[in-house]
Amino acid sequence: MAKLQQLADLVGGEVSGDAEIEIGQVAPIDKAQAGDITFVANPKYLPQLKSCQASAVILSPGIDVSGQNLLICANPYLAFAKILTFLQVSPRPVKGIMPGALVSESAVVDPAATIYPGCVIGERVTIGSGTTLYPGVAVYADVTIGEDCVVHANVVIREGCHLHDRVILQPAAVIGSDGFGFAPDGAKYYKIPQVGVVVLEDDVEIGANTSIDRAALGVTLIRRGTKIDNLVQIGHNVEVGEDCILVSQSGIAGSSKVGNHCTFGGQAAIAGHLTIGDNVMIGGRGGATGNVAPNQILSGLPLMPHKKWLRATMTLPKLPEMRKDMQQMQKRLDELEALLKEK
Amino acid sequence: MAKLQQLADLVGGEVSGDAEIEIGQVAPIDKAQAGDITFVANPKYLPQLKSCQASAVILSPGIDVSGQNLLICANPYLAFAKILTFLQVSPRPVKGIMPGALVSESAVVDPAATIYPGCVIGERVTIGSGTTLYPGVAVYADVTIGEDCVVHANVVIREGCHLHDRVILQPAAVIGSDGFGFAPDGAKYYKIPQVGVVVLEDDVEIGANTSIDRAALGVTLIRRGTKIDNLVQIGHNVEVGEDCILVSQSGIAGSSKVGNHCTFGGQAAIAGHLTIGDNVMIGGRGGATGNVAPNQILSGLPLMPHKKWLRATMTLPKLPEMRKDMQQMQKRLDELEALLKEK
Amino acid sequence: MAKLQQLADLVGGEVSGDAEIEIGQVAPIDKAQAGDITFVANPKYLPQLKSCQASAVILSPGIDVSGQNLLICANPYLAFAKILTFLQVSPRPVKGIMPGALVSESAVVDPAATIYPGCVIGERVTIGSGTTLYPGVAVYADVTIGEDCVVHANVVIREGCHLHDRVILQPAAVIGSDGFGFAPDGAKYYKIPQVGVVVLEDDVEIGANTSIDRAALGVTLIRRGTKIDNLVQIGHNVEVGEDCILVSQSGIAGSSKVGNHCTFGGQAAIAGHLTIGDNVMIGGRGGATGNVAPNQILSGLPLMPHKKWLRATMTLPKLPEMRKDMQQMQKRLDELEALLKEK
Repeated sequence: MAKLQQLADLVGGEVSGDAEIEIGQVAPIDKAQAGDITFVANPKYLPQLKSCQASAVILSPGIDVSGQNLLICANPYLAFAKILTFLQVSPRPVKGIMPGALVSESAVVDPAATIYPGCVIGERVTIGSGTTLYPGVAVYADVTIGEDCVVHANVVIREGCHLHDRVILQPAAVIGSDGFGFAPDGAKYYKIPQVGVVVLEDDVEIGANTSIDRAALGVTLIRRGTKIDNLVQIGHNVEVGEDCILVSQSGIAGSSKVGNHCTFGGQAAIAGHLTIGDNVMIGGRGGATGNVAPNQILSGLPLMPHKKWLRATMTLPKLPEMRKDMQQMQKRLDELEALLKEK
Repeated sequence: MAKLQQLADLVGGEVSGDAEIEIGQVAPIDKAQAGDITFVANPKYLPQLKSCQASAVILSPGIDVSGQNLLICANPYLAFAKILTFLQVSPRPVKGIMPGALVSESAVVDPAATIYPGCVIGERVTIGSGTTLYPGVAVYADVTIGEDCVVHANVVIREGCHLHDRVILQPAAVIGSDGFGFAPDGAKYYKIPQVGVVVLEDDVEIGANTSIDRAALGVTLIRRGTKIDNLVQIGHNVEVGEDCILVSQSGIAGSSKVGNHCTFGGQAAIAGHLTIGDNVMIGGRGGATGNVAPNQILSGLPLMPHKKWLRATMTLPKLPEMRKDMQQMQKRLDELEALLKEK
Repeated sequence: MAKLQQLADLVGGEVSGDAEIEIGQVAPIDKAQAGDITFVANPKYLPQLKSCQASAVILSPGIDVSGQNLLICANPYLAFAKILTFLQVSPRPVKGIMPGALVSESAVVDPAATIYPGCVIGERVTIGSGTTLYPGVAVYADVTIGEDCVVHANVVIREGCHLHDRVILQPAAVIGSDGFGFAPDGAKYYKIPQVGVVVLEDDVEIGANTSIDRAALGVTLIRRGTKIDNLVQIGHNVEVGEDCILVSQSGIAGSSKVGNHCTFGGQAAIAGHLTIGDNVMIGGRGGATGNVAPNQILSGLPLMPHKKWLRATMTLPKLPEMRKDMQQMQKRLDELEALLKEK
């Protein structure tokens, strides 16, 4: 519970209307009741405000809305996130090593960490202050986990991998599985040992059932602030830059390097041994088969500028018709040529 | 073991031949032996019946097969499923809370439920009669699980999610992982807390390694009877209607609403914030980038009527040839035009 | 640590230079220091050798490199893998059934196997000599696991499945989940019990978060030597031949049969009930919708010869332009025809 002025101070915004009104929680515009605050990040929802019961609305400056208490700020979506965090997220209680957690004697767990039952912590592991491991997390030997990390249930972190601070792993994510490397030996394949590790830098988040393979030699590296969704595949020796967004079911094959601030849509794919520049956006199901220069918005397989791809795919359903038209045109050409020969 | 007449009564069919013959198990047509019952759902397999050793055959009415004991019924595939269930599926024994299961004191587990070793059950959880949790299931606080559910090993159900009755979760499915929501804050991303839940209604089945994200606010909802295959991604705030079929590796992005009785093929994708009507079939790897009206069979990216897509994709390999043909036609046009100018 | 001559003997190669030099570890060409051995499998990296600090280089015969100690052999990549294994992979210590592992009384675990804490081993399971199960592995009743297998943390192996020898399962892989089989019963679906099993033959490797469904009746079979990457879906009753390579996020739908020595790229898909011949390569995101004859390199959806696909996809971005060109050509034809009529 907070007064509207208090929330405005939190997000660096200004109040228009009753600054003293009490706000209990955040609610979407179509469900908000008295005591709630809602937000409009997309102007197309503005008409819904008329019938909205919320006690206050988070809005961008310069929009004329009468009869509502407003919290006006430059980035309403960010303000919404911060207010939601403030009002509705409780700090995780520190519970220490709970009964039923199996911690190796040589592991060092900070007293302000929480290890739930069913976790198994290997030899020489270190776990920092404020970090929580939910039930069933398996941490192999020589792993280091920093401060204020959240590792959800049934995550696996294999030997020697490193998590820096404030890393979040959703349930059943796998960090440090063997890379997919085999040397052909006649018809059979010989397994190439994968003796490298994975490093997840500060503020990285990894989705549920996502796999990040350890390097064959060296490091698979996810840099600071990058967010990876569910069911994503990161191959061995990949490097992903800072503040990237990798949407669900996308994949990056072995040894590719991705720049900073890239965004890959759902089911997108990057082939192996490529370099993707900074600020590259690849649309859903786009596929990179060659290096990509920075600062582009691309889609398709092969990749092309997104707008070109939109036009190209619009043409796809017309292909059979185009083929028929061409056959007709060829007939007409044949006839014209015959006619001209006669003359 | 059952007599053929007993099986006919079970599925509402009729016997032609020896109604007293003993049937031990179900077998495919190419492997059935004496004592087995087999089935023919697809007429193309009828010729194989001649050499089939089965003691009886499940068939549709109106097919003339001599010299075999027949169980005739309207839906042989459904009859096969029911007879297989009757003959070969034993009820799960009730074992209560087994040693090695870690159940919070405030959790309420029905005495007729089974909790295998290695499960960790959080605070205020309730688990209904006849439900089985296999080893390594992690159930966070405030979850409710109904009656006669089957939760396979290493599933994770996060805080506050609700499973109604007869829900089946295959191994390592994740229910209630955080939705993928971040607000840009300059170059960095600020995590939007995901404070909603997931509700799985009666008779829902979720595949292995599938992730169902919790809502940001509110509920991610899978309605009664819907079946979701392995490695599927369901984003936050998605709603899927009743009796849908989502095949493996498909994905639905955040906030999309899917109607009743839809079927999505393998690797199909639905972009975010869309509405898909009832009775929509989307073929394997189809991709919805806009709303879809009900009662359609669609394929491709962009989606088009399935038959049109079949024709369009058949044209794809001919594209380079079409391009050459066009260049030739342009030459011929140039020549004709030149010729006509001369005259 | 080993002398260069010893490594040459190990891989059947020859030394050129100082055979007595001591090698400590393998390193990539751009990071190798004194005491390291590196390798050049791809000639494009040869120029980097000049500035390389490695004590020795693994090379193919017939390449002229002066001033370096060389280990010359026919297959440098294979030699690299074998030397890496020799120098840097320690044997897994045998630890027996560790405290915190929950093993059913009727299970038979070889004394030379290792079962980590948090594993739950069901009734009548047998586990062979030299096999390691990492924490949190759930093994249902009647499973057999052969010798020298490695089962990583949080893997699930469901009832009755069989692993032969030297099988490797990466973390959170699921073996024997129910196949996705439902019989329509009016608008609803009736679950077809999946009473078959999965068999993984010798030297099979399965990736992290990959799901292999059990057969409805009979066996889902992965034959000797096949390697399956992360996040792959194998449907019920599938059979995959020997020495196949299935790259990440690919999928094979129910009842399809794949020959020996096939390679499927990332996100590739095989529809159900198909037969794929021996030695078929399908490129990344290729999709088989019909049977495929042996000995082909294919890509695309629909599949076409890989080179044809490369040309076809290069044409895709030009489609809108082609369509415009056609409209122009039609105009020109109209004009020519009008002109000729006049004459």
